[in-house]
Amino acid sequence: MDLFTGFLFKGLDQDQLAKIAAISIEISMQNGQKLFAEGEEAKQLYILKKGAVELMTGAEHNLQLPISMLRDPGDIFGSHALIPPYQYSLSARCEETGTLLNIECSTLKKLMAADRDLECIIMRNLAQHFLERLTETRQELKTHFRVLLKSMRS
Amino acid sequence: MDLFTGFLFKGLDQDQLAKIAAISIEISMQNGQKLFAEGEEAKQLYILKKGAVELMTGAEHNLQLPISMLRDPGDIFGSHALIPPYQYSLSARCEETGTLLNIECSTLKKLMAADRDLECIIMRNLAQHFLERLTETRQELKTHFRVLLKSMRS
Repeated sequence: MDLFTGFLFKGLDQDQLAKIAAISIEISMQNGQKLFAEGEEAKQLYILKKGAVELMTGAEHNLQLPISMLRDPGDIFGSHALIPPYQYSLSARCEETGTLLNIECSTLKKLMAADRDLECIIMRNLAQHFLERLTETRQELKTHFRVLLKSMRS
Repeated sequence: MDLFTGFLFKGLDQDQLAKIAAISIEISMQNGQKLFAEGEEAKQLYILKKGAVELMTGAEHNLQLPISMLRDPGDIFGSHALIPPYQYSLSARCEETGTLLNIECSTLKKLMAADRDLECIIMRNLAQHFLERLTETRQELKTHFRVLLKSMRS
């Protein structure tokens, strides 16, 4: 159960975690392997067990901007698979050969439909997670704006 | 019930909407009035009934960057009051004298604790809302990045 420590699982009890562990499948990933691409239909959620995964977004032509590097066991990605429009907003690529836990979201949704408490907690965790990312991203936008202002003045 | 049409209330039934309407208080706002400031503890949720409200973020010194202008009856703002760290991430100012519905979030949280279904739906709506804002904000960042690249090349 050591891997179910990420933001999505905060506040779940041991029984609820055991139900999620039971629907998780261990898969391996190879250095350089593309796990999913921005814009693709999102059906799978991933938990990092070993190795590293980079999340990126396409800026123009073939240029990919790095968003974050996941290295800690328990790190979660692909959570867009739980929220409409069920589409990955970033691309994920293996940066160091390792292991993932893979959760089919249609199965997780069935668990949530049968356990409203589980659904509530997961949705609250998701809302908080997206809000944190939003706050960070707005902060970055402000930094860009300040740089732009500075360059206009100089 | 015509005002309870915003993103937060999507999927709620008439009974649930009636419970929320029962804890809403109508207040007036005057042109230029500050409703809340970025960084303040968030305790209140607002629904626009009449008039207009601008949401802004502080960029540097006294400069406020406009984020959005709310003009449609039913528009919701202040939803950060429902998610930790319970802090407004934007400032809100009345731009056209009008009327708001005000909801004390501690009271709404009591409603949600008593009705798990209501909580689940509201949390799912919040997660989707923050995800949409995040996608938009990342898009803006990419636009800035492209402009920067272009200016470096020219």
